[in-house]
Amino acid sequence: MFELLLQSIKERVDITDEEFNFCKTLFIPKKLRKKRFLLQEGDVSRYTTFVEKGMLRTYTIDDKGNEPILQFSFEGWWVSDLYSFLTDEPSNYNIEAVEDCELLMITRPSWDMMLGKVPALERYFRILVQNNLIATQRRLMGSISETAQEKYTKLINGFPGCLQRVPQHMIASYLGITPETLSRIRGQMATNK
Amino acid sequence: MFELLLQSIKERVDITDEEFNFCKTLFIPKKLRKKRFLLQEGDVSRYTTFVEKGMLRTYTIDDKGNEPILQFSFEGWWVSDLYSFLTDEPSNYNIEAVEDCELLMITRPSWDMMLGKVPALERYFRILVQNNLIATQRRLMGSISETAQEKYTKLINGFPGCLQRVPQHMIASYLGITPETLSRIRGQMATNK
Repeated sequence: MFELLLQSIKERVDITDEEFNFCKTLFIPKKLRKKRFLLQEGDVSRYTTFVEKGMLRTYTIDDKGNEPILQFSFEGWWVSDLYSFLTDEPSNYNIEAVEDCELLMITRPSWDMMLGKVPALERYFRILVQNNLIATQRRLMGSISETAQEKYTKLINGFPGCLQRVPQHMIASYLGITPETLSRIRGQMATNK
Repeated sequence: MFELLLQSIKERVDITDEEFNFCKTLFIPKKLRKKRFLLQEGDVSRYTTFVEKGMLRTYTIDDKGNEPILQFSFEGWWVSDLYSFLTDEPSNYNIEAVEDCELLMITRPSWDMMLGKVPALERYFRILVQNNLIATQRRLMGSISETAQEKYTKLINGFPGCLQRVPQHMIASYLGITPETLSRIRGQMATNK
């Protein structure tokens, strides 16, 4: 436990063993089985969570009953509803385990304390949030101007492992297209190979 | 000069007068006239820029010649292509003054030095990037699942001043719809009032 978290931090900032040992005391380990929820719409996101193993999806449910997906979170990623976590407001998102997961959770007060005592982690989270912003901006621009096929090609080039681990209907929800459209695109691409 | 920047920082973190006086020495003031470019596609985003006055748009040009807009940046906001600024890679974005602008620019080496010397600014930028991420995630989810009318209503509720300052065709580009669709929506909303 904690190896992947330590690696994630050390790749980005300098942290002493003493500082990391202090951080470790603040996390709550949790196993979450497939199809169970880490967060449900209407609840407050009390924790931000590091994924040690497994994969989760963050999604909303819109008025038409669709479930557009904001994010898949694999090992080594953080997951929470950031807005709800920072404001204590109820969340609009659901976070569900797509695979059996092993998680490290930290509450808002512990997270604040950790950032106060270990300033390098301010930098660590700034870098993570920055990278997430860059990726989200690209996806947004793509969703405004790309065709479904362009979006799909970008996804499989960016996350080749995604196809093996994520059910097709979730990939469609992530791209904002119907499963039928996705199936048609995959058919066309197989034919053109 | 610098009052708005000081206010932006003080609203979020504690900074001493001495620290802020040091920061001020690192910025380069620039006036940019309407329709001039702060950044053009293919160039590296050498600066991150605080908007003291005026407004800019960040946009790409897609294969069909459309100009989807990532962001409008008003007074009190920061603007750059974050990816290009952080990596020295050429940018895919254009940043153009929509109004006459007064700007405070800072280079990457100066910005790094500033964050090193004034750790409170790590926190300041983490908070800004975090808020930008939350807003971009919401816009992304909206762009996947909302109708054009829902997107427009959300924009005018979120930025009431936007309508007075941003030309109609740019609002359409921001929403990822045609000017004709926008015009139809506005007509319908006026009729239903």
